[in-house]
Amino acid sequence: MDVSLTATFSHQHRAIEVDGFYDGGTDYRVRFMPDTVGEWRYLTHSNVQELDGLSGTFACTPAQEGNHGPVRVHKTFHFVHDDGTPHFSFGTTCYAWNHQGDALEEQTLETLRTAPFNKLRMCVFPKHYAFSQNEPEFHAFERQEDGRFDTTRFNPAFFQHLERRIGDLRDLGIEADLILFHPYDRWGYSTMPSEVDDRYLRYLVARVAAYRNIWWSMANEYDLMAAKTMQDWDRFFQIVQTHDPYQHLRSIHNCRDFYDHGKPWVTHCSIQRPNLEDVSLWRQQYRKPVVADEVQYEGNIQHNWGNITAEELTHRFWEGCARGGYVGHGETYMHPEDILWWSKGGILHGESPARIAFLREVMEAGPAIDPYQTYWDLTQAGDDNYRLIYLGRHRPVVKAVTLPADKQYTVEIIDTWAMTITPLEGTFSGPCQIPLPGKPYLAVRIRLSLD
Amino acid sequence: MDVSLTATFSHQHRAIEVDGFYDGGTDYRVRFMPDTVGEWRYLTHSNVQELDGLSGTFACTPAQEGNHGPVRVHKTFHFVHDDGTPHFSFGTTCYAWNHQGDALEEQTLETLRTAPFNKLRMCVFPKHYAFSQNEPEFHAFERQEDGRFDTTRFNPAFFQHLERRIGDLRDLGIEADLILFHPYDRWGYSTMPSEVDDRYLRYLVARVAAYRNIWWSMANEYDLMAAKTMQDWDRFFQIVQTHDPYQHLRSIHNCRDFYDHGKPWVTHCSIQRPNLEDVSLWRQQYRKPVVADEVQYEGNIQHNWGNITAEELTHRFWEGCARGGYVGHGETYMHPEDILWWSKGGILHGESPARIAFLREVMEAGPAIDPYQTYWDLTQAGDDNYRLIYLGRHRPVVKAVTLPADKQYTVEIIDTWAMTITPLEGTFSGPCQIPLPGKPYLAVRIRLSLD
Repeated sequence: MDVSLTATFSHQHRAIEVDGFYDGGTDYRVRFMPDTVGEWRYLTHSNVQELDGLSGTFACTPAQEGNHGPVRVHKTFHFVHDDGTPHFSFGTTCYAWNHQGDALEEQTLETLRTAPFNKLRMCVFPKHYAFSQNEPEFHAFERQEDGRFDTTRFNPAFFQHLERRIGDLRDLGIEADLILFHPYDRWGYSTMPSEVDDRYLRYLVARVAAYRNIWWSMANEYDLMAAKTMQDWDRFFQIVQTHDPYQHLRSIHNCRDFYDHGKPWVTHCSIQRPNLEDVSLWRQQYRKPVVADEVQYEGNIQHNWGNITAEELTHRFWEGCARGGYVGHGETYMHPEDILWWSKGGILHGESPARIAFLREVMEAGPAIDPYQTYWDLTQAGDDNYRLIYLGRHRPVVKAVTLPADKQYTVEIIDTWAMTITPLEGTFSGPCQIPLPGKPYLAVRIRLSLD
Repeated sequence: MDVSLTATFSHQHRAIEVDGFYDGGTDYRVRFMPDTVGEWRYLTHSNVQELDGLSGTFACTPAQEGNHGPVRVHKTFHFVHDDGTPHFSFGTTCYAWNHQGDALEEQTLETLRTAPFNKLRMCVFPKHYAFSQNEPEFHAFERQEDGRFDTTRFNPAFFQHLERRIGDLRDLGIEADLILFHPYDRWGYSTMPSEVDDRYLRYLVARVAAYRNIWWSMANEYDLMAAKTMQDWDRFFQIVQTHDPYQHLRSIHNCRDFYDHGKPWVTHCSIQRPNLEDVSLWRQQYRKPVVADEVQYEGNIQHNWGNITAEELTHRFWEGCARGGYVGHGETYMHPEDILWWSKGGILHGESPARIAFLREVMEAGPAIDPYQTYWDLTQAGDDNYRLIYLGRHRPVVKAVTLPADKQYTVEIIDTWAMTITPLEGTFSGPCQIPLPGKPYLAVRIRLSLD
């Protein structure tokens, strides 16, 4: 707490201030993520002579293959990586996977390697909750002699482990949707004094902001944290916004009541609700990307947020995506050792991930889409060149669609559960009647014919 | 139009003014529905000498078996008949069944005889819409020489036929939810001048208010009637409220936007929406009974309001009922002669009516229920003596329930689709874990043990 350390990184006439941090022993570090190829200079500033005035240069080379940079908001409601690569968010949830010890954590990574997810919701702090009672290996603070946390001294090992796991996700192409606070706690992390909260935030930002795959989530279920006020949440956003040199995405996740995602420091909505039909309303309300990242999980536990079928979760993914939103996965099947994916990771048992992979392929094969004449009764997105209609629980035997009369279109029937795409014969134009097999959970994809 | 006719009906010191009406030829009539056993007197008032000052007495005898009187609002959110018999509303929809000619109309009545419905939504005026293009036998007005309607002269035959069908429903124990205006029109009924609208309402009320099974629905999809303003709708309610001596139930049915059911002349909500989870919100918002009488129909036509499965409609019935609301049925299967139940009646083809019959038995075996600790994530109604939990799309393998510790309860698992009720062994008390088969669309009924 007595040492201040920052560094200025400069490229030509541009200079960026970055906070440093203490990393154990006699180590102090400053991390930086350059965004421009070329020569950069640095110069440190500290109240400690040995850390002050250190300078040097380094070369920023072109990004390696697979490195598309951080994710940004794009066209109001969507995402792209910094290099312009579209990012269709398909997240999952493993709240405390990084507090399970190396064996299980590595199994989780192995599972993620072939899973369809490119974002993962995870907590900085360990989690105390049903199915999640184990003591973590690391804690964020050093202990006092009486065994209590000394909240003036961060434990570098805790953060080094966190960073290792964030890096592991990065290497798999997965965004770390990092949850900064949450209510499920027996250690005191959810009830720290404000000055400790704020110091923690600055320390964490200094440590991990340079990871390109960071998304900041101020909280999981912020509204269940009785010790925090709305002013606290606003201040947390402001601290992160002020100290993150890279302006990673920022949001906050609700239980009962939404945070006002219209506030200027919120980059996108992070929503817990099962009614994906309302994605189009939330888009209108907040004018930001809508990530419905908790829509209830595939599973069979007693809590209603964790016992829907794979069919139902697949349905909610399609409903949200075909209204111009993004949806998140989780899995909560009863397990003899309480290893539920949503909390601890491990392996996936469910049937929805294969369907989510299929949906992701469909979405990534098209443009980012906005609702098109959407209504509570019609789930449809796209434009005059590309249209995706999701029929959900409806099962018409025919669907009337009016296409521009001066162009020709191909039409495909997508079975979202069977994961089949069936092209209809010929091309379509103007007002047309699309024959359908009269079963639920179909989608219709209409694309400009390239012939 | 030149003849005024009213009558005063009196019982002891109570007097009720009732409007009379012209019924063709030289017939003028006054209809009256007494609500009290005993001797009643009447005295007519008219600007025509032959109709003025006519008087007499008659005896009102006790109601015949099966006659429970009109339906009233009960305990804010529910319904009872005037004699105190509970009324659990299970409606269906046959908008234009009464404009199909006797053969089909009688087939509809025959179907209704064994169907589970005790309310039917029907239009006074004929309907012009998809699957409903036929010319009706009767029109509400006499024709001028040029073939156009003479809106100063009602056609008694039209109304006599309507009354006959209302009486047929009454004899089957079915409430006639009579739709006074609707937008689907090629004859001009939806665009009449205000004075014709108002005269029609007074004439209709004078004719049919004495039928005990009348519910007034100002409109189907009022918000699609471009020629009417909100002031018109308010005035229509006021006219009906002013002239109906019996104060039958009054509501109005929306398409896109709800009418403000909080207005004082609205007795209950009549709602078109598929999201039955919101029944509990609408109850809170309006503090009136919620009748979700259009929740999309079992069928396979191209319109999304008419192509959900029997399973899905059954689910919506349970969701609404277990949140303290009432739900309506409709059926729209493609038919070679365009005889779709929702518009023309005929016979039922679907699989939901059997399940609605089963649900009705369940509901009628218990008390009228209000939400109990309900949340968007929990569908539950009842109190300390009776509880109905509907699990819907959820499929937990166990459900934690906390019951009063000083009483014993029986627990039954209800399969809403298979229509089975399976009692669990023994009795339950205090905090308990209810084992479940882990499949969707189950309900749990918990009742105070009578042992």
